[in-house]
Amino acid sequence: MLIQKPIKPVFIVGAGPGDPELLTLKAVRLLRQAGAVIYDRLISDEILAFINPAAKRYFAGKSCKQHSMTQDEINHLMVTLARQGVQVVRLKGGDPLIFGRGGEEASYLAEHDILFELVSGISAASGCSSYYNIPLTYRGMATGVRYVTGHCKAEELSLNWQSLADPYTTLVIYMGLANLSLIATRLMEHGMPPLLPVALIENGTTPQGRIVISDLKHCAKAAQQHQLVPPTLIIMGRVVSLDGIGDINQKNQSRSPVQYDTSRQKV
Amino acid sequence: MLIQKPIKPVFIVGAGPGDPELLTLKAVRLLRQAGAVIYDRLISDEILAFINPAAKRYFAGKSCKQHSMTQDEINHLMVTLARQGVQVVRLKGGDPLIFGRGGEEASYLAEHDILFELVSGISAASGCSSYYNIPLTYRGMATGVRYVTGHCKAEELSLNWQSLADPYTTLVIYMGLANLSLIATRLMEHGMPPLLPVALIENGTTPQGRIVISDLKHCAKAAQQHQLVPPTLIIMGRVVSLDGIGDINQKNQSRSPVQYDTSRQKV
Repeated sequence: MLIQKPIKPVFIVGAGPGDPELLTLKAVRLLRQAGAVIYDRLISDEILAFINPAAKRYFAGKSCKQHSMTQDEINHLMVTLARQGVQVVRLKGGDPLIFGRGGEEASYLAEHDILFELVSGISAASGCSSYYNIPLTYRGMATGVRYVTGHCKAEELSLNWQSLADPYTTLVIYMGLANLSLIATRLMEHGMPPLLPVALIENGTTPQGRIVISDLKHCAKAAQQHQLVPPTLIIMGRVVSLDGIGDINQKNQSRSPVQYDTSRQKV
Repeated sequence: MLIQKPIKPVFIVGAGPGDPELLTLKAVRLLRQAGAVIYDRLISDEILAFINPAAKRYFAGKSCKQHSMTQDEINHLMVTLARQGVQVVRLKGGDPLIFGRGGEEASYLAEHDILFELVSGISAASGCSSYYNIPLTYRGMATGVRYVTGHCKAEELSLNWQSLADPYTTLVIYMGLANLSLIATRLMEHGMPPLLPVALIENGTTPQGRIVISDLKHCAKAAQQHQLVPPTLIIMGRVVSLDGIGDINQKNQSRSPVQYDTSRQKV
């Protein structure tokens, strides 16, 4: 194949969880140098403001049930632009390699002989954890942390419940709101304590952010009562109830107030 | 207690995995505004260069076997400085809430009635994953990812092996080099396939970074042969062998070359 202009690598870049200050220096530099940016839903205007004004912008959309562009269309657009010699940034929420399909898009580029570079972003788990003072690991409470996805469709939800039901591993569930009742039930059936604290974090790290603290038994109902909608990150584990941290959180006016589910019993 | 100057919150900030460009905008802003910075080992000179020149610097040290300051001394220093009205930044490698003891230090501050704010950093898992093109999740290969610590002392290593031995969950082991042989043996005893690909990443995301690709059966020997030393992050999982991504990695001159363990069989 004869190529007119030299092909530049496509940068697959994480935009972090929402707060524009959680962008990396590298993400900002690449956005300023971009010739075209293909960006997902949930990328805020403040983040888009970092884009080189001369760059073309493409909204790729994507939510649980609706796609503005299909994955095939996104893949095709990246390749087409790159072959035209355009400096492409593919901008994704969170971290591109944690439930971001960054790996799949990189594979597609590799198959089409286009160089790429992946650039980490702060994942939703990490951003929400810091914002709402919930350590993902903590001596004596959580020896590790695990990220799973609750998927969009219930029929696809085939998780290894026995392995997940470990109260000493913090469990972070991405895209789990729609299946929360099923997830909580299965975890309790596999021995997870009903009073295990659960944090439900809607629009985490943004000014619209809300956090509801409940427990495994009541969290699905609490999500309904508080009318939480996606994107809501779910954090389950003993670390959710770090009292000293929780109390001081109340004094920190810069953060969203914590809403405690009143049906929840303190553990 | 009578306090002369108003106490400012202590910022517990993640410095990311090594590459200074993976600092967040917020971390840079806070370092520029700091009155004092207490920083860990493994924070590079390029990152320290962002610190306000007028700020006092305190090296907290900390490695597996030696501590320049004990945790008690670090805690005490944060409180003392904060009570003097100094704007303190506690700078930690990676993410403060993923094996960073950020939660423990926050609890200590809360107990001493000092406000704090946690600021996410790119975790080593995320940074290394992007740098070396190893997606942490990938359709059909890894439905989730899990972070555990291999600790410093073998006698402390009490992991739930049965739960960990899941070939469809990417397993990231922090501080696991010293116990790698034991970890690999236990995982194979619990059913993890001996040919499961393993990446050993020393000094990930830095110019000195090295990556060795092996498999579960041979990784401990490969670590010895290549004389890997801490900090070495271990990633185990099918995602380590994404061929298309691996091949293109070789063409990308800006990254460290991958060293393949020759004793390893391709899966």
